[in-house]
Amino acid sequence: MSHNSFGHLFRVTTWGESHGPAIGCVVDGMPPNARFTLAEIQAELDRRRPGQSRYTTQRREADEVRVLSGAMPGETEGEYVSTGTPIALQIDNTDQRSKDYSDIARRYRPGHADVTYDVKYGIRDYRGGGRSSARETAVRVAAGALARKVVPGVKVRGALVAIGDIWIDRARWDWAETSKNPFFCPDAETAVRWAEHLDGVRKRGSSIGAVIEIVAEGVPAGLGAPIYGKLDADIAAGLMSINAVKGVEIGEGFAAAALSGEDNADEMRPGANGRPDYLSNHAGGILGGISTGQPVVARFAVKPTSSILTPRQSVDADGNAVDVMTKGRHDPCVGIRAVPVGEAMVACAIADHYLRDRGQAGVPRS
Amino acid sequence: MSHNSFGHLFRVTTWGESHGPAIGCVVDGMPPNARFTLAEIQAELDRRRPGQSRYTTQRREADEVRVLSGAMPGETEGEYVSTGTPIALQIDNTDQRSKDYSDIARRYRPGHADVTYDVKYGIRDYRGGGRSSARETAVRVAAGALARKVVPGVKVRGALVAIGDIWIDRARWDWAETSKNPFFCPDAETAVRWAEHLDGVRKRGSSIGAVIEIVAEGVPAGLGAPIYGKLDADIAAGLMSINAVKGVEIGEGFAAAALSGEDNADEMRPGANGRPDYLSNHAGGILGGISTGQPVVARFAVKPTSSILTPRQSVDADGNAVDVMTKGRHDPCVGIRAVPVGEAMVACAIADHYLRDRGQAGVPRS
Amino acid sequence: MSHNSFGHLFRVTTWGESHGPAIGCVVDGMPPNARFTLAEIQAELDRRRPGQSRYTTQRREADEVRVLSGAMPGETEGEYVSTGTPIALQIDNTDQRSKDYSDIARRYRPGHADVTYDVKYGIRDYRGGGRSSARETAVRVAAGALARKVVPGVKVRGALVAIGDIWIDRARWDWAETSKNPFFCPDAETAVRWAEHLDGVRKRGSSIGAVIEIVAEGVPAGLGAPIYGKLDADIAAGLMSINAVKGVEIGEGFAAAALSGEDNADEMRPGANGRPDYLSNHAGGILGGISTGQPVVARFAVKPTSSILTPRQSVDADGNAVDVMTKGRHDPCVGIRAVPVGEAMVACAIADHYLRDRGQAGVPRS
Amino acid sequence: MSHNSFGHLFRVTTWGESHGPAIGCVVDGMPPNARFTLAEIQAELDRRRPGQSRYTTQRREADEVRVLSGAMPGETEGEYVSTGTPIALQIDNTDQRSKDYSDIARRYRPGHADVTYDVKYGIRDYRGGGRSSARETAVRVAAGALARKVVPGVKVRGALVAIGDIWIDRARWDWAETSKNPFFCPDAETAVRWAEHLDGVRKRGSSIGAVIEIVAEGVPAGLGAPIYGKLDADIAAGLMSINAVKGVEIGEGFAAAALSGEDNADEMRPGANGRPDYLSNHAGGILGGISTGQPVVARFAVKPTSSILTPRQSVDADGNAVDVMTKGRHDPCVGIRAVPVGEAMVACAIADHYLRDRGQAGVPRS
Repeated sequence: MSHNSFGHLFRVTTWGESHGPAIGCVVDGMPPNARFTLAEIQAELDRRRPGQSRYTTQRREADEVRVLSGAMPGETEGEYVSTGTPIALQIDNTDQRSKDYSDIARRYRPGHADVTYDVKYGIRDYRGGGRSSARETAVRVAAGALARKVVPGVKVRGALVAIGDIWIDRARWDWAETSKNPFFCPDAETAVRWAEHLDGVRKRGSSIGAVIEIVAEGVPAGLGAPIYGKLDADIAAGLMSINAVKGVEIGEGFAAAALSGEDNADEMRPGANGRPDYLSNHAGGILGGISTGQPVVARFAVKPTSSILTPRQSVDADGNAVDVMTKGRHDPCVGIRAVPVGEAMVACAIADHYLRDRGQAGVPRS
Repeated sequence: MSHNSFGHLFRVTTWGESHGPAIGCVVDGMPPNARFTLAEIQAELDRRRPGQSRYTTQRREADEVRVLSGAMPGETEGEYVSTGTPIALQIDNTDQRSKDYSDIARRYRPGHADVTYDVKYGIRDYRGGGRSSARETAVRVAAGALARKVVPGVKVRGALVAIGDIWIDRARWDWAETSKNPFFCPDAETAVRWAEHLDGVRKRGSSIGAVIEIVAEGVPAGLGAPIYGKLDADIAAGLMSINAVKGVEIGEGFAAAALSGEDNADEMRPGANGRPDYLSNHAGGILGGISTGQPVVARFAVKPTSSILTPRQSVDADGNAVDVMTKGRHDPCVGIRAVPVGEAMVACAIADHYLRDRGQAGVPRS
Repeated sequence: MSHNSFGHLFRVTTWGESHGPAIGCVVDGMPPNARFTLAEIQAELDRRRPGQSRYTTQRREADEVRVLSGAMPGETEGEYVSTGTPIALQIDNTDQRSKDYSDIARRYRPGHADVTYDVKYGIRDYRGGGRSSARETAVRVAAGALARKVVPGVKVRGALVAIGDIWIDRARWDWAETSKNPFFCPDAETAVRWAEHLDGVRKRGSSIGAVIEIVAEGVPAGLGAPIYGKLDADIAAGLMSINAVKGVEIGEGFAAAALSGEDNADEMRPGANGRPDYLSNHAGGILGGISTGQPVVARFAVKPTSSILTPRQSVDADGNAVDVMTKGRHDPCVGIRAVPVGEAMVACAIADHYLRDRGQAGVPRS
Repeated sequence: MSHNSFGHLFRVTTWGESHGPAIGCVVDGMPPNARFTLAEIQAELDRRRPGQSRYTTQRREADEVRVLSGAMPGETEGEYVSTGTPIALQIDNTDQRSKDYSDIARRYRPGHADVTYDVKYGIRDYRGGGRSSARETAVRVAAGALARKVVPGVKVRGALVAIGDIWIDRARWDWAETSKNPFFCPDAETAVRWAEHLDGVRKRGSSIGAVIEIVAEGVPAGLGAPIYGKLDADIAAGLMSINAVKGVEIGEGFAAAALSGEDNADEMRPGANGRPDYLSNHAGGILGGISTGQPVVARFAVKPTSSILTPRQSVDADGNAVDVMTKGRHDPCVGIRAVPVGEAMVACAIADHYLRDRGQAGVPRS
């Protein structure tokens, strides 16, 4: 058991605060002989990196990752070969502005973990949110880049499917679009509407929530450990552990509650390889906690950024009534940058279950 | 790590198949000197027990629980005092009809775990669903009865809030109603509508999904273990591990995605005891993975029962196309009986985090 | 984490008190499609069963094990086929004499856990030692019988190598002898000396310690999870968790401290299969925490039975000075019956690491 | 479960290779508001640091530790206050000589983990022993310095009690002596004999084993989690996980096997505080896996350094017969530097059980 680790056989332990010298993680369980490059990890980090559009925080972090252990240099520049020992990844914090934190050091920002950390620990690194800052998710993304290497052929992708109550049109879903707009939006038309809407949100110093969908293709059938280590239970825990997430769905999700058994059934026909072909995927690729071989589909809801310009009533650490208004660099919609983080958590959960099933020795060596 | 265990310091390990000789669990971590009675556990089991109305399966199990270890006889008949050692609870399966299972032994029922268990294990106890049957949840409820004893003053209650697309009216919420209708419905008027609706579903051999809400009051502030052992992440995993669950929400849940930061903020005012008074509870009692002291509110969606009378296309274990139509005793809405199960999982998660925080020795001895 | 579980992927959770209605265990992680018989488990239990010679306690337990879950009936009477779900094993306690325990209920027997359980828990099942009784080890032996089925070709055997300061002569080591005397002694001549010596110990109501050696052959090279899950570290924990054990050794053990590097080196020559042939096995089959493919050799020391007829000074639960003299049925040398228990723990540790390495799906299906 | 983590509630995860850029650890579970200084950690590291006498390896590492997370700056220079979040400690590797490793890259050094790592992983960081190097133990010592802060009043000390077959005279035991000679020897006269003996060993390029004793005073009664998380079982695992350790004892250890029950009994008399006074400590402070409140006494045996100047027969990675003779900087007796490492493992195990018992919230805040 650990408070800061995720997974069992593919186990990610993270550390670091928003404004400390660095953040990092230890990936324990990476199978040996996996080849990866710094560029691959960096590419994932860059997708999450702040400051890339006016819709995300203007904090500018280079987010340059270093590999400190667990891999030997590969044949080409920047290539590594895993050795089976723990891989330590580290990212220096370069943009910790030496600002005056005295106003938030003792004031509890509504919707933030300030008050609960203080109650639990009696002390709190208030600089930039400390440990409860979404900065921690950068190393999740780095770990996820390694997780993607564990299961041969697996492809984990995410998209933003709603901002506020503006949902994409699934008929226009095109994965290629997700890299063409600042929202990971798979629907070009909706991306235009979001841009407009978010400009308004940003200008009035407000914020808005979002819904993200993660799709993992190429997940072998048979992964998942019923009863309490179900693949969907682990994905749910992983996604719910992301900052600001308030809901998680698998497949049809909450909509399943309104369906009849007939409509929700994923019928099967004999498939080419002796395995069933499914005629639909209401289940989201998981039955009884075990993957069916269909795409694993998960969705999660992110609440609106709590840091807003409008003053809110609150209290301080001494129990006095105060008004809190957040200044500084913040995302009007933290859900956007949660897309690569969600991908990483799903990739890690799948890698973990793959290793439970096959063992480290059962992973094909590249 | 274990496939069939939930929790760390309050750890529940379950075993048993639907039609085996018995099902049971081991509760490891129950603090010593807790007093409990068989009647208390039995009362929870009776709330989940099938065959109590025409809306749940007609399987009739006495569901009589026995305590085999971990407790000394108390002063009164049926009372026990925990000793700190593992408590083994056991329920004999009494209504395993010696029916002919040959038709489902090799046919995969759509929406069931038949196919995935076969792919994963190459063998499956097909009798009544075996391990993947919701029968397993009976022992969760028994364990939950003990979990409720761990945190002094905690009260965990659940209610059905939607069947299909018929939602309760929250303005009429009355906890007392939940024990007066067969649906755990807190709204007497909606219960009437559900009865009517479900009669139709049942008569046409169909099924329907549902949404359940669990509310835990009296949860001390400060429980939860960020980053990956957040209280909400553990609740999400626990609820998602229940059969047929496809979605989990905390507090505002998916609705938070459509809110602005202003509307979602839970403002605070100085409280009587030096702790803040919250003016709202959009967060569902958890901030940054740590309890605020407000009620913890979780919701989960249960898909419609997969076993329906309408034939569905499927395949058998030999890869042949077959039609599957479920006969036998099944719930038209499995969501109903999921209410006490959801309560149990939330109670267990809270007990586990309470022990992480206070330790076994820190629990007040009754 | 769990107080009453051993292992991770092959995970044994035990429960039960010496004089409760039953004891049992849940074996979680048994690979599917393993065939086993009740007779095989019973045979191991019978090796540990008390009352079989005048050198072990006269308590008579039938120790009849039942399989309550996790397996389907096999083709022949008493045969089972595992399904991959948790296997619950249970043994009823049949010989709980309804004696008067009032004298030990509140008196602390020196060398027993009476006092520490009381300090820790504030309550204690004093009947027959409760949870701290060696009776718990019966279910370890049952679990070990299943563990032996996990790794194809593995053979785990144990022998008593010393009683008091009388050591066996290794030159006379014959495994066949271990089943021919009541001591699991591999050296027929020493068995005779032990019989004589133990008769004296028994007659004067005293007790004596012992050393047990466990040898596991057929352990594949490559098992073990450095750094903190080393195969030898897990074996050490497993053996040290057995009642009354005070020391554990791997290979040369403490004698290695007196050796030079030259004498302790296990030299290698090219072997037939591309793997090295070792010229010696000072390492006990484990290097850097990973199995070499040689026999794994572990040894453990068991202290003399604490229950003796000579009165010893002690205190009672009220802090009064008392004299304690144990009456009742006890082993003059608990080390004897620890032999099958030690085998079981080593077998479980190896099975666990095998599954970490190969995964459940990587186990050959019988 | 994790291969590179130790402990549950006080959880240490280590990473790094001997000749990589750095080594480090993450300490998860450190209670908040604990004050510590870099100097305190550094002082422990300096006790283990190589190159301090002619009896340890001449590798010279500054071993300067940095604190990267989990603590706020304290009031004085170099002071930190823990925040309850994971503490990342890091030590740069400064003396990785750019030597030619081609001779050992593919040759298996007898007694080393070269061959087993290659079998297990199919790849190995051969530079300086990579992950299997004792260099990893430096961060254990750093973590141990924090562990010592967890339990108020606990004092964990270690001493070398035997080199080869030369044992100290316990009648001359003086803790003050352990810091006055290069052997952590509590007996000044024996230290002189060891110096002489080790000079001979070193000059002939040989090596020798050793026995270390760790004594933890001030351990509260009641720590330990029977049955499988016994305090002594966890200490045994922790000590056995140290490089080159082949045996572990608690209290009387293997000598208990030769004792009678009368001689091994730790009799009790009423103590001042209502708790028993023990008249002896054969048990080593642990009964039934739970601390008695007496000093916890553990001993472990370290094999002779495997790297010696005398050529030994071996094989290479291609299966050819080779002779291996180690050149380079190595300890003639690795047991010496194992003393602070053993202390650290015992301190970590005690801290972990303290937190299991009291919880994070139950630790007195300094």
